[in-house]
Amino acid sequence: MTGVNVERELAELKAKVEATPGTGNKLTMVVFSGSLDRQLAAMIIATGAAAMGMEVVLFFTFWGTAALRDPRKHVNGKNVISKMFGVMLPKGKNALKLSQMHMAGMGTAMLKGLMKKKNVASLDQLFEVAAELAVKIYICEMSMDLMGFRKDEMIDYPNLEVCGVATMLVHARESSLQFFI
Amino acid sequence: MTGVNVERELAELKAKVEATPGTGNKLTMVVFSGSLDRQLAAMIIATGAAAMGMEVVLFFTFWGTAALRDPRKHVNGKNVISKMFGVMLPKGKNALKLSQMHMAGMGTAMLKGLMKKKNVASLDQLFEVAAELAVKIYICEMSMDLMGFRKDEMIDYPNLEVCGVATMLVHARESSLQFFI
Amino acid sequence: MTGVNVERELAELKAKVEATPGTGNKLTMVVFSGSLDRQLAAMIIATGAAAMGMEVVLFFTFWGTAALRDPRKHVNGKNVISKMFGVMLPKGKNALKLSQMHMAGMGTAMLKGLMKKKNVASLDQLFEVAAELAVKIYICEMSMDLMGFRKDEMIDYPNLEVCGVATMLVHARESSLQFFI
Repeated sequence: MTGVNVERELAELKAKVEATPGTGNKLTMVVFSGSLDRQLAAMIIATGAAAMGMEVVLFFTFWGTAALRDPRKHVNGKNVISKMFGVMLPKGKNALKLSQMHMAGMGTAMLKGLMKKKNVASLDQLFEVAAELAVKIYICEMSMDLMGFRKDEMIDYPNLEVCGVATMLVHARESSLQFFI
Repeated sequence: MTGVNVERELAELKAKVEATPGTGNKLTMVVFSGSLDRQLAAMIIATGAAAMGMEVVLFFTFWGTAALRDPRKHVNGKNVISKMFGVMLPKGKNALKLSQMHMAGMGTAMLKGLMKKKNVASLDQLFEVAAELAVKIYICEMSMDLMGFRKDEMIDYPNLEVCGVATMLVHARESSLQFFI
Repeated sequence: MTGVNVERELAELKAKVEATPGTGNKLTMVVFSGSLDRQLAAMIIATGAAAMGMEVVLFFTFWGTAALRDPRKHVNGKNVISKMFGVMLPKGKNALKLSQMHMAGMGTAMLKGLMKKKNVASLDQLFEVAAELAVKIYICEMSMDLMGFRKDEMIDYPNLEVCGVATMLVHARESSLQFFI
């Protein structure tokens, strides 16, 4: 093997290592659940990873999308079914319920009280930290379409984007770390 | 270092990179949940990844296995407990319920109606696409045994196989992308 | 390119490959759920992976932490809210319920009976196997703090440790395989 061959082979292997799927210093999470407990887990992991210097991408889908609605924003001209979804699903992250022990609101209120007392960041604060740490948030296009949600009723968040499953998969495949929550 | 050594070391490193766990262009998903919403998410991600050229392996376990039953197939000679599971769990993918907002069938029916109207693929169609894209489906042997399900009451799907957790783990470890749904 | 350069570049690439995130022969799982079915899935996957020679790290958080309590251990001096959580959450892994089909205990008892009959390992036995196979268990510090759980009311398990989300993320990023359960 001549020096030129070695050089070329080494360069090829280097490029291959760079492009290897599943090795980026990056976390991609699918946030499927709309319960307070699982959304808290997602945002604590997301902000923790971003604080450690990882690139973080969140893809909110299905029940998770309802958490991104801004309760102060109103959208007119929705059809009946979209209005039904709008009324029945929690309007934004402060209206989420625990997946268990909700107990007509008592358990959820108790947890929120405890979090405040113990100085654990609220979901609102975690979204603020996420924005500061450049955590990227995507919302699933198909879910928005099914539930009749529109981008202009979603929270103000830097570079919030609507995308399809392929975009999520491209990010996830590059990431060394992925969770479905 | 002589040229021969370099050549050998380079070859060794190449082999190592090829065999590195977690880097295959491959997605492995454990489909644990038997709810309509989570099964839809699993199949949308699976078909999306397969369409992007990824190898896709699904491992249906626990509540997820009930979705793979074919309601047209009947199996005789089951014991009492297997019959109870058979009756109580949804018989196939068209009998799945939403994990929330099922509302005695109204919410589930509403979502299915919306999906049709918006031209979103149904679970039936997603399984057809998955079969065309060579998505591999395994069913968990232990779950089948516990719930008294038999392979001959499962859907017709190309190369449907029953396997244990070790087979799933071998696939998952090779994959750059894994989800537990 | 001289031989010295090749040698250096090869060494650098080797080191890079060694340190690539997401490629360790290692499984990290976040055990968030406190239901019997999901905890069984987590422990079956954990012991299966450990038996295959993978390093396995479990991070019990939120509802999952309640499963690690030892019902024989009593802790005095808790405040009212901690006592409430203590009473309302299942006291240890033998008090866990199925996430569905619990049916006032009948479904859960039926599954446990079936598992015994079919010689499927119980949760107790799976924890014993996990300990033998050196599966590492961490408990989430924030969850313990919120729910008022103390380390001295947790099960006896080799090297059981309390840690924060960052420790979990460091393990998860090194792992070729990760699940959120």
